Amino acid sequence: MIQPRTLKGFRDFLPARMMAREAIIDVARHVYRSYGFAPIDTPVLELFEILDGKGGEESDRLIYRFTDHGNREVGMRFDLTVPLARFVAQHSNELGMPFKRYHIAKVWRGENTHRGRYREFTQCDFDTIGTTSVASDIEMLLVINDLMLAIDIEQFTMRVSHREILNGVLEKLDLLSKSAGVLRAIDKLAKIGRDKVIAEMVDCGVTSVVQAKEILKIADLSGSTGEILDAAFKLVSGNERGEAGISQLREIVQGTRAGGVRPERLTVDVSIARGLDYYTGTIVETFLDELPEIGSVCSGGRYDDLAGVYTKQQLPGIGASLGLDRLMAALEEMSKLSQSATAAPVLITFFDANRLHEYLGLARQIRAAGIGVEVYPNPTKLGQQLRFADRRGFQVAIIAGDQEFERGQCQVKDLRSSKATDVSLQNDAAKVVELIQKLIASRESRGWPG
Amino acid sequence: MIQPRTLKGFRDFLPARMMAREAIIDVARHVYRSYGFAPIDTPVLELFEILDGKGGEESDRLIYRFTDHGNREVGMRFDLTVPLARFVAQHSNELGMPFKRYHIAKVWRGENTHRGRYREFTQCDFDTIGTTSVASDIEMLLVINDLMLAIDIEQFTMRVSHREILNGVLEKLDLLSKSAGVLRAIDKLAKIGRDKVIAEMVDCGVTSVVQAKEILKIADLSGSTGEILDAAFKLVSGNERGEAGISQLREIVQGTRAGGVRPERLTVDVSIARGLDYYTGTIVETFLDELPEIGSVCSGGRYDDLAGVYTKQQLPGIGASLGLDRLMAALEEMSKLSQSATAAPVLITFFDANRLHEYLGLARQIRAAGIGVEVYPNPTKLGQQLRFADRRGFQVAIIAGDQEFERGQCQVKDLRSSKATDVSLQNDAAKVVELIQKLIASRESRGWPG
Repeated sequence: MIQPRTLKGFRDFLPARMMAREAIIDVARHVYRSYGFAPIDTPVLELFEILDGKGGEESDRLIYRFTDHGNREVGMRFDLTVPLARFVAQHSNELGMPFKRYHIAKVWRGENTHRGRYREFTQCDFDTIGTTSVASDIEMLLVINDLMLAIDIEQFTMRVSHREILNGVLEKLDLLSKSAGVLRAIDKLAKIGRDKVIAEMVDCGVTSVVQAKEILKIADLSGSTGEILDAAFKLVSGNERGEAGISQLREIVQGTRAGGVRPERLTVDVSIARGLDYYTGTIVETFLDELPEIGSVCSGGRYDDLAGVYTKQQLPGIGASLGLDRLMAALEEMSKLSQSATAAPVLITFFDANRLHEYLGLARQIRAAGIGVEVYPNPTKLGQQLRFADRRGFQVAIIAGDQEFERGQCQVKDLRSSKATDVSLQNDAAKVVELIQKLIASRESRGWPG
Repeated sequence: MIQPRTLKGFRDFLPARMMAREAIIDVARHVYRSYGFAPIDTPVLELFEILDGKGGEESDRLIYRFTDHGNREVGMRFDLTVPLARFVAQHSNELGMPFKRYHIAKVWRGENTHRGRYREFTQCDFDTIGTTSVASDIEMLLVINDLMLAIDIEQFTMRVSHREILNGVLEKLDLLSKSAGVLRAIDKLAKIGRDKVIAEMVDCGVTSVVQAKEILKIADLSGSTGEILDAAFKLVSGNERGEAGISQLREIVQGTRAGGVRPERLTVDVSIARGLDYYTGTIVETFLDELPEIGSVCSGGRYDDLAGVYTKQQLPGIGASLGLDRLMAALEEMSKLSQSATAAPVLITFFDANRLHEYLGLARQIRAAGIGVEVYPNPTKLGQQLRFADRRGFQVAIIAGDQEFERGQCQVKDLRSSKATDVSLQNDAAKVVELIQKLIASRESRGWPG
């Protein structure tokens, strides 16, 4: 006998959780498509040379890699961006530019599981390739805004910045070549505090504490979006790079308002540092106001050159990724996930062993009205069947035996109130359908799936 | 520079094909759910001991396996049935029985690619675990029937049989112990012909050509479903096992008719032999009448004991699997796949560089009516934008510059007829939405996504 178990860092999804995941994925697909992003898919396995070195040293170490049956070195993808780069370079003629795609799929990283991290998780990416237009930066934020609202999250904040603002500050101080180290230090501000960040900056090439404090001013900016942009402008004034970044950020803020984003849902936060070496322009992180400590649930930004290692064609792009696993954890913590484990709201009990055909026919009539129905497969005791219905989360049970069928009726039982009603089976069970629709509609939504 | 390419036997899906796949998967999910099958998911990687030996020697050889970072022997799943067995054994208390699940996911086999086979493909499985009731056998066929119709395939035939019929014939001849070899031989009937099948039967233990011919009689039965069942009954008469199989098959045929399956869509074919060692009762294969040579697009059957290697609990089950890749190949061959590569039907051209905010606002109004809109990101020449729209398969383009905006109008262009109409932007662009809805509805469906 082999012990049934999953690998460390891997999870099964049981029906209640999987239905919630499918519902959120459906919403993401719908929102992405409503902006013209189209789905693609790529293989889980890539030649290792495609993945090698693309995510930095740490990623390389975490890749699940092996030699396949044909002696090829292969690896499981660790994100959806490297496969996108390979895909766009390979198919660019057929795709045409601009190219907007979404990709919702699993990725794998052999991470340390101590920090509650999983080794298999799902990313929901959307990207626009082939344009440097600020219209696409604005659109990324509109998509995130619509996505959060469609998931029924009203209280959220997108924090945006532009990499060229910090670069402008650094260039003014003649420290542009130290930007990677400075970014890494600033990224730790919340965790380790000002003094240690200053010390780390000095360690990585910032010449004095005075300079480090000058750099840190960008992390101290506060106030309204307009005030922050004005103050940031003073910090970079005279530097072309920094001024261009702020000017773009202004356009982006105005554009998102024209596109319908409420001002309080978009703040400029010049201290966010995400995607150290990768992003070159706009960057965004999205926080739930109720649970900021869970971290950003949707992050992204602009990059100058997606696929430079695969093609000579310059392919700029911008996009973001919804972190499905983190979002699900947040929804769970906010009690926004339903516990129901049934995909159909109605159970037809198998009450009379000789009436299977009638149950199948009735199920067909109810399904024809667009309502899901499960027929219990065995004529076991009614009490057992009703306990099953309750445990699974069915909303309505239908009970009918010889007596009911002879009267041309069945019993429709609301499983919440336990109230049972005799209803006519005439006219393709129209009255039964009508009552079920009423009962289902009267239920308050108890969370995802909504 | 690294050459961008996919591994041999693996494929990218570009937008047009991926949208068709997503549409078919949505249909499958909808049909499965309408019968109360709920989704689950399991990890792509399993401990190798979980997969080892579960699909026979050939499967073991084909498994992608390796040693992970923690020195564990792991493998990528080669089907969804072995993970289901492990899953049900591991979670049976929490799941409760009967348990109905669907699972739509990728599987991997290091197959020889000569025969046009892929090494990564998608299965769409549905199974009912924990009951031996014939109601579940009937339901499996109702689901396949609904699935085909929902995919817009009207001409199909489900061929059903019952493993105990052949077993009955063999038991009467005192050859029950040779059933695996006999099944393998019969399975080749169409390929190698009667004489070679008879020779192969004799090779694997059937004692004489006379006996082999006696067995082959079950492959010769023809006529109406009732005639075949009657004739098969004569072949097994007196044998309990065979008679029980035929009696169940009769119940199943009657049940599917009560459930709404047209008689011509279900035939009894005692010669189908699928799932050599695995299935123990009802078996089914589904053929497209237009393309029978492509093979069964949806196959399944009943098994006595799903998870015997993982648990002492006896878990009978029944289910089937839609072969998505084979079905997509068939739809392509029948010209039922759309070539459109856009997820949104409407393109707002970026005609006037100063009017981005108006375009974003208009896009928002159209999206609010449930219609997908892409805004072209750059103010390039209109001709280039319209060629882009045409190539991608957009249905409607919207063009508006200073003149139009000053008149409070925009131009709505039907990209099929090239007819352009000036429409008012008043009242949240209500007239624009109305015209777009009319234009989209008037398009005939040109295949999946429908």
